[in-house]
Amino acid sequence: MQLTPKVKEILSWYESDNPGTKANLARILMQGKLGGTGRMVILPVDQGFEHGPARSFAPNPAAYDPHYHFQLAIEAGLNAYAAPLGMIEAGAATYAGCVPTILKVNSANSLSTSKDQAVTGSVADALRLGCSAIGFTIYPGSEDQYAMMEELRELAEEAKAAGLAVVVWSYPRGGFLDKTAETALDICAYAAHMAALLGAHIIKVKPPTAAISLEAAKKTYEKHPVEVNDPVARIRHVVQACFNGRRLVVFSGGEAKETGGILEEVKAIHAGGGNGSIIGRNTFQRPKAEALKLLDDIIAIYRSPPAR
Amino acid sequence: MQLTPKVKEILSWYESDNPGTKANLARILMQGKLGGTGRMVILPVDQGFEHGPARSFAPNPAAYDPHYHFQLAIEAGLNAYAAPLGMIEAGAATYAGCVPTILKVNSANSLSTSKDQAVTGSVADALRLGCSAIGFTIYPGSEDQYAMMEELRELAEEAKAAGLAVVVWSYPRGGFLDKTAETALDICAYAAHMAALLGAHIIKVKPPTAAISLEAAKKTYEKHPVEVNDPVARIRHVVQACFNGRRLVVFSGGEAKETGGILEEVKAIHAGGGNGSIIGRNTFQRPKAEALKLLDDIIAIYRSPPAR
Amino acid sequence: MQLTPKVKEILSWYESDNPGTKANLARILMQGKLGGTGRMVILPVDQGFEHGPARSFAPNPAAYDPHYHFQLAIEAGLNAYAAPLGMIEAGAATYAGCVPTILKVNSANSLSTSKDQAVTGSVADALRLGCSAIGFTIYPGSEDQYAMMEELRELAEEAKAAGLAVVVWSYPRGGFLDKTAETALDICAYAAHMAALLGAHIIKVKPPTAAISLEAAKKTYEKHPVEVNDPVARIRHVVQACFNGRRLVVFSGGEAKETGGILEEVKAIHAGGGNGSIIGRNTFQRPKAEALKLLDDIIAIYRSPPAR
Amino acid sequence: MQLTPKVKEILSWYESDNPGTKANLARILMQGKLGGTGRMVILPVDQGFEHGPARSFAPNPAAYDPHYHFQLAIEAGLNAYAAPLGMIEAGAATYAGCVPTILKVNSANSLSTSKDQAVTGSVADALRLGCSAIGFTIYPGSEDQYAMMEELRELAEEAKAAGLAVVVWSYPRGGFLDKTAETALDICAYAAHMAALLGAHIIKVKPPTAAISLEAAKKTYEKHPVEVNDPVARIRHVVQACFNGRRLVVFSGGEAKETGGILEEVKAIHAGGGNGSIIGRNTFQRPKAEALKLLDDIIAIYRSPPAR
Amino acid sequence: MQLTPKVKEILSWYESDNPGTKANLARILMQGKLGGTGRMVILPVDQGFEHGPARSFAPNPAAYDPHYHFQLAIEAGLNAYAAPLGMIEAGAATYAGCVPTILKVNSANSLSTSKDQAVTGSVADALRLGCSAIGFTIYPGSEDQYAMMEELRELAEEAKAAGLAVVVWSYPRGGFLDKTAETALDICAYAAHMAALLGAHIIKVKPPTAAISLEAAKKTYEKHPVEVNDPVARIRHVVQACFNGRRLVVFSGGEAKETGGILEEVKAIHAGGGNGSIIGRNTFQRPKAEALKLLDDIIAIYRSPPAR
Repeated sequence: MQLTPKVKEILSWYESDNPGTKANLARILMQGKLGGTGRMVILPVDQGFEHGPARSFAPNPAAYDPHYHFQLAIEAGLNAYAAPLGMIEAGAATYAGCVPTILKVNSANSLSTSKDQAVTGSVADALRLGCSAIGFTIYPGSEDQYAMMEELRELAEEAKAAGLAVVVWSYPRGGFLDKTAETALDICAYAAHMAALLGAHIIKVKPPTAAISLEAAKKTYEKHPVEVNDPVARIRHVVQACFNGRRLVVFSGGEAKETGGILEEVKAIHAGGGNGSIIGRNTFQRPKAEALKLLDDIIAIYRSPPAR
Repeated sequence: MQLTPKVKEILSWYESDNPGTKANLARILMQGKLGGTGRMVILPVDQGFEHGPARSFAPNPAAYDPHYHFQLAIEAGLNAYAAPLGMIEAGAATYAGCVPTILKVNSANSLSTSKDQAVTGSVADALRLGCSAIGFTIYPGSEDQYAMMEELRELAEEAKAAGLAVVVWSYPRGGFLDKTAETALDICAYAAHMAALLGAHIIKVKPPTAAISLEAAKKTYEKHPVEVNDPVARIRHVVQACFNGRRLVVFSGGEAKETGGILEEVKAIHAGGGNGSIIGRNTFQRPKAEALKLLDDIIAIYRSPPAR
Repeated sequence: MQLTPKVKEILSWYESDNPGTKANLARILMQGKLGGTGRMVILPVDQGFEHGPARSFAPNPAAYDPHYHFQLAIEAGLNAYAAPLGMIEAGAATYAGCVPTILKVNSANSLSTSKDQAVTGSVADALRLGCSAIGFTIYPGSEDQYAMMEELRELAEEAKAAGLAVVVWSYPRGGFLDKTAETALDICAYAAHMAALLGAHIIKVKPPTAAISLEAAKKTYEKHPVEVNDPVARIRHVVQACFNGRRLVVFSGGEAKETGGILEEVKAIHAGGGNGSIIGRNTFQRPKAEALKLLDDIIAIYRSPPAR
Repeated sequence: MQLTPKVKEILSWYESDNPGTKANLARILMQGKLGGTGRMVILPVDQGFEHGPARSFAPNPAAYDPHYHFQLAIEAGLNAYAAPLGMIEAGAATYAGCVPTILKVNSANSLSTSKDQAVTGSVADALRLGCSAIGFTIYPGSEDQYAMMEELRELAEEAKAAGLAVVVWSYPRGGFLDKTAETALDICAYAAHMAALLGAHIIKVKPPTAAISLEAAKKTYEKHPVEVNDPVARIRHVVQACFNGRRLVVFSGGEAKETGGILEEVKAIHAGGGNGSIIGRNTFQRPKAEALKLLDDIIAIYRSPPAR
Repeated sequence: MQLTPKVKEILSWYESDNPGTKANLARILMQGKLGGTGRMVILPVDQGFEHGPARSFAPNPAAYDPHYHFQLAIEAGLNAYAAPLGMIEAGAATYAGCVPTILKVNSANSLSTSKDQAVTGSVADALRLGCSAIGFTIYPGSEDQYAMMEELRELAEEAKAAGLAVVVWSYPRGGFLDKTAETALDICAYAAHMAALLGAHIIKVKPPTAAISLEAAKKTYEKHPVEVNDPVARIRHVVQACFNGRRLVVFSGGEAKETGGILEEVKAIHAGGGNGSIIGRNTFQRPKAEALKLLDDIIAIYRSPPAR
């Protein structure tokens, strides 16, 4: 297999990483229907932990079975499948070598009153399960954010030495951040940038809204305006925050929504130079045929020539 | 000894585990009167730690002696016996090889004002005592839940490498959960699902009630209703939450109650596809002959052909 | 030297322990004037740490000298001598091989506002000082109880592997426990039981009072009454809580008191099946001749035929 | 499962071992058609390593498949199956929990010109593969014997701490020992005794011949004669050398021979108080039906009442 | 990507391995033009170490450049590329993710007078370089064979825990083996069998000749004859020695030879059920176009329907 020029270019950005980590990034980038384009669609299934099984899987009960998600990711031709320890353990042998996996090594749940997560997996787990990367969530803004960043630092250091990639979910939350702030453009760009600074290879954030939330940042945005009402410009701003595009950034789908809304968002990500989508509930909560159709439509957008 | 097709099927679900862990699961599943059926009855004796010796053993003073419980588990033909360090140490040599043991490696007590547990045993202890598994309690919802999950993660990783199985007691407690919430159907299914995600081989939960407790979950249950008033449907829902049945789930007997009530509960577990009962106080607090009779009746239910 | 049948029986209860630990238990049990009877009198001198030197030793200034206590234990024909690191270091060579020693490896002091103790000795210390056992205090009920139990777990695992015995001081304290609760019968039995569950070879508790303190336990004690006003019945209940007598339990003398009161307590311990006394202040705060007389009287009681 | 009095007695001989090791000995002793009798038949398949695959398996090509041997041991109702790493790895999951396995952790081969063996397995391997014991060969008399004994010491110490049993193949060889000496009665008894002294739980030797080979020993045997021409007396003498029967000793079948000869040998082992046979080539080199018949006949002898 | 039924079957043979190792085996087996067939062609370039650079690369000077070999393996559509540390380091980043690599972790050279190899790479190296497997040579028969096997044991245990596969070059050599013996059928089958017993996932041997060399084996081969003059039968015999086909076995190309001879050998490997070729000098010592043509022809043979 030869890498495409696009993937070679992307790997060149990770110039401090060892070939093992590059190979795992290449595996993710060369996999599936978007293989070689520099764009990715990743299936994350950590909602069972975050929201409970029924809220996650009752809309499509086949999804209670961990094998379902491996199969969905493979059939849809996605780039990778991300999930917590138990979900990966339950299918990693059956689907060995079929799709790159990302072991989500920390997890929160809806019964918690804190803004932290439990570390629930290790680099050794990722290696024995054949994963290509570890995934870790930080909550910039929360009381526990520094402790979370320190856990990430340790795990990322170990992962990189073992040739794994590091995917960081960067979700502003807690402290003085209100609901609006959590997805405000300035905060989102800030969160993405911190993930990059923490050494993430792939950054996951929520699509930013038009709000500018941090008081101290408003003056800057007034002086150097971003067209906040243009979703494409907003994505472009987040990409900029990811080392001007030198780090891969993918956007979550968020709560289940209408197909039209999802595709509009994807078009903006694509046009704005984002590297793809990490989309869970919007896929596995639909009947499989519908999910495959939606994923095909998303992939088609990412395969179309970039406008920029 | 040949494994039954049912046990072979169950072992195939644990596809990431080494043969040592599979052998210990097989030992538990092939033991006693339910050996080979895929159903289990386990005797847990950690109530002395949780509630004190008198509340645990005064109703049947013979049970103050640790040998009593080994003997009860063996005579009744149970699948395994679970207890904290001292209880296992006091009988492990006399009953070496007679019944699989589960070393309960964390413990709480009634003098505590916190919602945590102390780690009171290790994987090295489990190996030197000839145990087949370690047991660990998490309290999803409590302030200390993430710390507990992290302790479990470390112990489970070590246990699996050494060929032991991991049994997780998942008991929602603390935080914003009231008494009703602790056994509500949605919370119980959630707790079971988290144990599975944390890599448990066998999950222990309390039988769920008809309540739906988490505000955020109510909409889902309205849209995708579970027949909450049917105990069989409730068990089935918990089984679904355990990776659609790919992880073994057993139900605690809870507080001492009438024989009739216990057997009704067991019938529902059986009909709903649960893998069995882990039943302590309701057995060792009765005179031995009565306990053996009750256990025989429970086993007879689990041996009857499943209705589903 | 042949072991007596009584000591052989006691050693048989420690069926999971290696011969090294058994030999150290045998050394303690075969030592002194009670050697071979299964009863013990142990001299503990950790009061200097707990209450300061003057409160401990001013009544009998000879006791400021660590050699004094070794000498006292040897002359009185006691089973063992227990003290913190410095006290043992100051006499262990002079009295090498003369009396079994127990290295108290954690200690509290009166200047502390917490209900915790500092770990002040190690298993390596115990080995280099020729000790037969380590001693460790837990405070069931205190905020720090789980941390203390986890420290004990680690030290006990290491001690047992090195062939040492483990003596646990189990003193309920803190949290919702008031002064009455600390020595209430139910709480005392509970504390002894937890020490047994944590893997103690010898358990030390305070003599229980007639109080029943834990609200949740009262119903049990009403239904299964203990003659709380009979000190012998109270001791018997604590012995029961120590695995029905399968673990050695000794009782502290508590605060300095009249000789008559002490002897009455000892008679109850003896009649109730307790394994002896661990008695410090009531001995070393008296002139040596008086102390030796008192110890002789205590030993005489333990040597008399058991009534039960 | 209750242990038989015979197995309880045998376990009582291993008084320094932890309950984990006792449980694994119990598993071997309670397994199969001889379960509970104190006698054993073990299937060893290390001949592929020792003599090459064709010399081992060509007579019965089905035996090239590692599953064949697991299946043979199970169908014949044997006590355990012993083999090197690769043979165990190739079947340990399929046959998890079906028959106790012994990981042979060192191996020699016919291409070697030395009298040593390579260490080819570890205690960690034994744990992850669910084995009950490790097996190790020493060559008393060879140039490398002390190095081999030192390897055994290290592995045995680790195995015992992890609750595994230790089986020692003690085969005199090399140095000044000629072919006759290798199986001479005095040398065989000596080899068995050294294995016992090295801490073996189960000792494997070759059936001794009538020769007395060590010059220095001849005087003793003249003064205290053994009826060397009676095979039963020879076995009895080897049993004596195994701590007067306090250590289990089994005898190898040696080179393939006629059924009659094998059964005569087994009768002598049985009558002389040996604990059984470890018999490889004479079973797996025959068609399966014949092998099962032979093993049934051997088992029948061991099940008959002992004459002594 | 879905695995083919053939690859699924092969993975099922590795029943003790974790999903990481299975994924790496799958990567190798699903790669290139033979992907999914269960057959492999692997490019090994350790001749520079073994024979010096000029003897290795002068015939085709482009091959002095490490990138040349990565490129050759990729363009030819091979399954994997194997080389020592420096060769992998020099290209692993450029070709990250393009072809599975096997880090050869021990190496010999022509300046040595011993029959040993130096360990020149580690599992950590393999992980940081993104390799799918480690490769290790043993010399059964040599004076150092046991030391080599012990090195392999340690490295293989570590590699398997980290999810890597283990490829063993098993080359009889030294001791009493003459040139004929090194490739004699019986010795070759023996060498392959030992690699399997040592826990190899993929075994590499030289194609066997018609000789039977080990004196002790001749009787067996007379009694259970192999058609030694039929190369297909010889391959089939070696496959049998690899756990009756449960372990993958590939054959080296050996010394540079005529195209016709190579293809005949490949046809025999194919017809005899061998899993492929590991062919170095015969490819990289030719001009690239010729090498690609030869590899295409070899692949075409392996892609043709198996005759057996």
